[in-house]
Amino acid sequence: MIIDKLIDAIIRTKNPSVIGIDTAFKYLPEDMRKGVTTNAEAAKKILEFNRQIIDAIYDIVPAVKVQVAYYEAYGVAGMETFRDTLAYSASKGLLTIADVKRNDIGATSSAYSSAYLGVNDLGIKAEFNTDFVTLNGYLGIDGIKPFTDDCKKYDKGAFILVRTSNPSSAEVQNIMGSNGEMMYEHMGNLVSDWGWDLIGKHGYSGIGAVVGATHREEAINLRQRLFSAFFLVPGYGAQGGTADDLEVCFDNDGLGAIVNSSRGILCAYQKIEGSNPYEAARHATIDMREDITRALINKGKTKWLD
Amino acid sequence: MIIDKLIDAIIRTKNPSVIGIDTAFKYLPEDMRKGVTTNAEAAKKILEFNRQIIDAIYDIVPAVKVQVAYYEAYGVAGMETFRDTLAYSASKGLLTIADVKRNDIGATSSAYSSAYLGVNDLGIKAEFNTDFVTLNGYLGIDGIKPFTDDCKKYDKGAFILVRTSNPSSAEVQNIMGSNGEMMYEHMGNLVSDWGWDLIGKHGYSGIGAVVGATHREEAINLRQRLFSAFFLVPGYGAQGGTADDLEVCFDNDGLGAIVNSSRGILCAYQKIEGSNPYEAARHATIDMREDITRALINKGKTKWLD
Repeated sequence: MIIDKLIDAIIRTKNPSVIGIDTAFKYLPEDMRKGVTTNAEAAKKILEFNRQIIDAIYDIVPAVKVQVAYYEAYGVAGMETFRDTLAYSASKGLLTIADVKRNDIGATSSAYSSAYLGVNDLGIKAEFNTDFVTLNGYLGIDGIKPFTDDCKKYDKGAFILVRTSNPSSAEVQNIMGSNGEMMYEHMGNLVSDWGWDLIGKHGYSGIGAVVGATHREEAINLRQRLFSAFFLVPGYGAQGGTADDLEVCFDNDGLGAIVNSSRGILCAYQKIEGSNPYEAARHATIDMREDITRALINKGKTKWLD
Repeated sequence: MIIDKLIDAIIRTKNPSVIGIDTAFKYLPEDMRKGVTTNAEAAKKILEFNRQIIDAIYDIVPAVKVQVAYYEAYGVAGMETFRDTLAYSASKGLLTIADVKRNDIGATSSAYSSAYLGVNDLGIKAEFNTDFVTLNGYLGIDGIKPFTDDCKKYDKGAFILVRTSNPSSAEVQNIMGSNGEMMYEHMGNLVSDWGWDLIGKHGYSGIGAVVGATHREEAINLRQRLFSAFFLVPGYGAQGGTADDLEVCFDNDGLGAIVNSSRGILCAYQKIEGSNPYEAARHATIDMREDITRALINKGKTKWLD
């Protein structure tokens, strides 16, 4: 199962982190940006940059996360780069997470799922083929089921938004229910239910939860409640979450979560005058691994390191 | 303001409905499907079909809604057809709603917004240019603000999911809060707040709400609470919502809502042996207009018809 493959890759690389290939054009080094005036040119340069970032880190991370918004922004050519970035990552042996946060009614979710996980009504395999997607569960199970069906059929996985890393997330996610449960806890329960029959050999389900690194108390709470949900943890680095904040997303064995960093890796070169962007990305990736590993060791969560 | 343009177009066409150009390949007539084996071929045929549908209805409806999932399903070529369908609709004088239900943290929502409403970091105007988008507010204001900023800057609008039309929507949206408000009511309040400074001459905001036709009691409740939120109403026809169910989405003047039908229009020809798909779509569009108008007249909600 794909979640087992992800956990095995984390153990193999001794690295529970995922690099976010969320490449805005403005993140590119100046010499790559020079003379570019169209979306098509920008998309081509972004792909070139992405390939070199992937070449620099593929052997030390288990997975990449590709945020589709940064590709939609450059139109059709951007979507081509999105597709090719996913494909290139897979060709280097990386697991891929398409960060798309899709959501809709059942029939429409089926169409979305066929774009990322399944097969469309022509019988053609997902063009934006990926191992995992991210989803938003505001519509309930109808909008999720087409994806979980494809997860079973094609050995794929999904992470569903539970407690997001952004400052205003409490406006909706921390609304207290009449039963004493906050909305994010309720969503967490739904995610557990939805993933019940996709649990792999490590005890985690292929239907996981997005739990931000910036909300330590909620993460502690969720880790205790959702024992079979694997956490995708955004918010490390640029958004302010530290390794000591987010170690609570991991179980006592040091498994159960994967931490994302995007800008912190892609833009690492901007902090060191004259540095090579790809070497800087590799160094930042190693630093992140060391930082998270240190926080886990401090808490004795080391079984996976053995 | 764009919301005024939409309301003026509804009054001019005497038609508070929007046609959903949510074209799955399987919806095409058999002769158009023949011999098609690739996404690129399918996308081309879908565009051809869409253009003819638009030609058949553009003079009798104010707007179209284009659901991006049905285009993502055919990959990069599908996204080209999505873009060209929006552009063709606009060229025929129709207002456009890109049904994308996007949602993310602030920086990422900015990238999304630049794809549909604004300008990207190259200074290039949104390639998937549209008048309105649909959004999901689960992340709170951070994820919405980049869109509302662009709405102000570029005279655009948005509809945010409040109470969706699908059967399982109550799993999240009808969770009762400790203050006695259901989640959909809370989301409705947020939508009102977020749209407060985008209210046009008709008293409605450019930041509207998605309220399904299939939940009559909730719609009555929301129409009373959200007096400045314009409703985009899915669920008519194929999903089971009737004109008499959904007339409650309209205010006493018969304004305040626009009703979507997709499959009911695109696939109308399948119900009449040997019929022309585009003529059938036009007839179905007229039938829908008559049906909704009748329900409004029955309730004396006729000011806009004068």
